[in-house]
Amino acid sequence: WAQVNELASHACGLKMYLNDTFGTLKLSDMTSWQRHLSHWPKRSPIVCHAERQSTAAVIMLAHLLDRSVHICHVARKEEIQLIRAAKEKGVKVTCEVCPHHLFLSTKDVERLGHGMSEVRPLLCSPEDQEALWENIDYIDVFATDHAPHTLAEKRSERPPPGFPGVETILPLLLQAVHEGRLTLEDIKRKFHRNPKIIFNLPDQAQTYVEVDLDEEWTITGKEMKSKSGWTPFEGTKVKGRVHRVVLRGEVAFVDGQVLVQPGFGLNVRPKQVPLVSEASQDLLPSDNDANDTFARLLTSDGPGGGVHGISTKVHFVDGANFLRPNSPSPRVRLDSASNTTLREYLQRTTTSNPVAHSLMGKHILAVDMFNKDHLNDIFNLAQLLKLRGTKDRPVDELL
Amino acid sequence: WAQVNELASHACGLKMYLNDTFGTLKLSDMTSWQRHLSHWPKRSPIVCHAERQSTAAVIMLAHLLDRSVHICHVARKEEIQLIRAAKEKGVKVTCEVCPHHLFLSTKDVERLGHGMSEVRPLLCSPEDQEALWENIDYIDVFATDHAPHTLAEKRSERPPPGFPGVETILPLLLQAVHEGRLTLEDIKRKFHRNPKIIFNLPDQAQTYVEVDLDEEWTITGKEMKSKSGWTPFEGTKVKGRVHRVVLRGEVAFVDGQVLVQPGFGLNVRPKQVPLVSEASQDLLPSDNDANDTFARLLTSDGPGGGVHGISTKVHFVDGANFLRPNSPSPRVRLDSASNTTLREYLQRTTTSNPVAHSLMGKHILAVDMFNKDHLNDIFNLAQLLKLRGTKDRPVDELL
Repeated sequence: WAQVNELASHACGLKMYLNDTFGTLKLSDMTSWQRHLSHWPKRSPIVCHAERQSTAAVIMLAHLLDRSVHICHVARKEEIQLIRAAKEKGVKVTCEVCPHHLFLSTKDVERLGHGMSEVRPLLCSPEDQEALWENIDYIDVFATDHAPHTLAEKRSERPPPGFPGVETILPLLLQAVHEGRLTLEDIKRKFHRNPKIIFNLPDQAQTYVEVDLDEEWTITGKEMKSKSGWTPFEGTKVKGRVHRVVLRGEVAFVDGQVLVQPGFGLNVRPKQVPLVSEASQDLLPSDNDANDTFARLLTSDGPGGGVHGISTKVHFVDGANFLRPNSPSPRVRLDSASNTTLREYLQRTTTSNPVAHSLMGKHILAVDMFNKDHLNDIFNLAQLLKLRGTKDRPVDELL
Repeated sequence: WAQVNELASHACGLKMYLNDTFGTLKLSDMTSWQRHLSHWPKRSPIVCHAERQSTAAVIMLAHLLDRSVHICHVARKEEIQLIRAAKEKGVKVTCEVCPHHLFLSTKDVERLGHGMSEVRPLLCSPEDQEALWENIDYIDVFATDHAPHTLAEKRSERPPPGFPGVETILPLLLQAVHEGRLTLEDIKRKFHRNPKIIFNLPDQAQTYVEVDLDEEWTITGKEMKSKSGWTPFEGTKVKGRVHRVVLRGEVAFVDGQVLVQPGFGLNVRPKQVPLVSEASQDLLPSDNDANDTFARLLTSDGPGGGVHGISTKVHFVDGANFLRPNSPSPRVRLDSASNTTLREYLQRTTTSNPVAHSLMGKHILAVDMFNKDHLNDIFNLAQLLKLRGTKDRPVDELL
C-alpha cells in the first residue's frame, strides 16, 4: 500500500469488483474490501460492481470508514431502495444506472436470445425496472457500461456478458424526455455535471454535444460505428438524435459521420506529475478537504450548462467552474484534426449530399424555403468556414 | 403483516436466514429483509444467520431502519471486524459466537472427517479463529447453535450441517478461563446477562448452575446426554465441569445425572395473553421505549451475578432486576419434579456411591478428613433435605 497515493494520482478512480463478472478481479473477502476502502485516498472515487447484498455491504463498510463510494450499474429494486434509504440517512453514496436496465428487462430476453442478452448485472424483472424509474431522483449518473463484444462473440458457445451502449444512450434518454419520464435537466445533471463532480473531471473548453430533439428514427446495429456491429436496442423507435459533437473546437461527428481520426480522443483528466513524492504530497489537498463531493453534488446548479433552443437544438455546454484542485500542470490543447479528414468530409457533403446540391446556385428568396436539412447543411458549412478562418487555413474550396 | 404484532408477542424473536443453511428458509432479496426489519416490533429481537457480506448488508439495512439486529454464530475475521467497526461507530448490533468456532478450525476437519465436520457457518481458518479471540470484547454472547444430529446422520451420504454443543460449552469456556483467555466475568456476562437482555428474558428464581473449576476431565461423546451420541470435542481435555444445575429450586442435574423428567424444562418467557388486541397494544411499551437494549447492555453490571467461592465452586446466580416490561401476566411456578425421580437419585447415591458409603456410620473427627467428593455428597444430601423440608415431604429415607 506504500504506492497507493502515487497510483491514485494517475487514476480516475479505483474500481472494485465484488461479484462474479466477465473478468477474474472479484474481491470476495471483506477484509480485502476494508483495506482498499481505507487506503485509497478519499479525494479519488471508489466505484463498485456490487450487486444485491454486496451493494448494502460495501456501502456499510464505506460508511464505517467514513468515505464515499459509487455504485455502478444499479439494476434491481432491492439495490435502488437500499441506496435511496442510505442517501436519506445521509450516507455518502452515489450511483449510476445503465440504459439497458432502464429500457430492457427479462421480457426482452427471448427476443434478444439468451446469449445476446447476457450482461452483468443481468437484465432484471419488469418490477426491478420500474423501481429504477420510480427512484430516478436518487440516481446520480446515467452510464453505458459500454462493452462492445462482437456479434460473433455474443453468438458463441460462451457468450461474454455485456452490451455496446455509447451510441444509443442519448437517443434513448431523449425519447424518455419526450415521453415525460425525464427532463432535459435530468440528462444534463446525470449525464454531464454529476459524473464530472464524482470523477473529478475538468471543464472541457469548446466541447459539447448538439442534439436534434425532433428527429424520429429507428436504432439499428448496422448504423453503429462500434466494431461490435449490433445493439440490444435494435428496432427501437426514438425521437431525438445526436446531430453534432464538437471536441476541443473540432467537429468530431456530424450527422452520422465521424470527422476525426482514431486517437483524436484524449484522456480529459489533467496530466499528473510523473511521481508524487512525499514532499509534493504536502501540496495536495488533504482527504478531508477534497472529499466534499457531496457538498458539490448538492450545489452543482451553478453557471453554465444552460439549455439553448430547446425546441430544435440543445447544446450541452460545459460551463461549471470546477477545476481539479490537485492538478499541478495545465491541460494541453491538441488540435489533431488533419486537413485530410476535413477535405474528405467536404467532398462527401458537396458531392453526395442531395440537399446541398439542391441549394447550390439558387437564390434565397424567403426564409421559409429552408427545411431543417437545409439549415443543418448551412450550419455545418459555417462551422467549417469558421474553423478554417481561426486556423488560417485555406477556405477557397468551401466557397 | 397485520398479525405481526400479535406474533411477536408470542415469540422470543424473529430469526432471518440470509445464507444457505440446513433448511429452506433463506431470504435472498433485500426488499424482503427490509419488510421483515421494518415490520417486526423493535421491542423483540431480530437474529440473523448472516455470513460474510450478508453480515454487513443486514447491519446496513437495520441501521437505515433504525433498529437493532443480532448476528448469530459469527465465525470469520471479516465478520467480527465489521461488527467491531459498526459497534465503534455506534451502530446497534449485537453478536454471538459458538464454541466450535472458538475452539475448532479447518485444522480439525481432517481429524473429524468431512461429514462430521459439516456445520454452518463452516469451520474457518486458524486466522479467522484467532480474530474471534482478538475481538472477544466485541462479542456479546456465547451460544451453542446446538444441532444434535445423530452419528448415523452425520456419517450418511448427505451429512446435515451442525454440532451438538449444549453439554460442552461451559467446560470449554472454563478451560479458556484457566488458560487466561477469558475471565469468569466474561462468562457471566456473555453466557448469562447479555442473552437475558438481548432476548428480554426474565429473572429465574432459584435457578443456577454450579461448576467445579478444578475438575480435570476429558470430553467424550459416550457420556453426553444428547441423543446425538457424539461431540466434535471428543478427546478434548478440560479443567472445569458442571457440578449441579438447580432449576426452579429443584436439582435438575448433579454430577452427570439428570434428576428431572423430560418435560421439566419450561419456556422461561412470561406467558402472553392469548391475543394482543389493538386495545391492549396501547398498554405495551412503545418501540422507542422498549428498544433500549443497548443502554441496558452498557449498564448491566448491577446487583447479582456475583461469584461465590471462586476457588472451588462458582454459582451463576440470577440476580439482575430486569423484568420484561410487556408481560401482562405473572410467571407460573411449576414444581414438576416427581418423588420417583428423587427417590431414584437417592437410591443411586446411597447404594452405588462408594464415597457416600465410606462416610456412613463414621464419626467426624476433624474437618480435614473430608475430601472434595465427600463435601459434594454432603451438600447434595443437604440440598435434598432442604427441598423435602420446604415441601413437607417425608425425609425419613434420607436420614
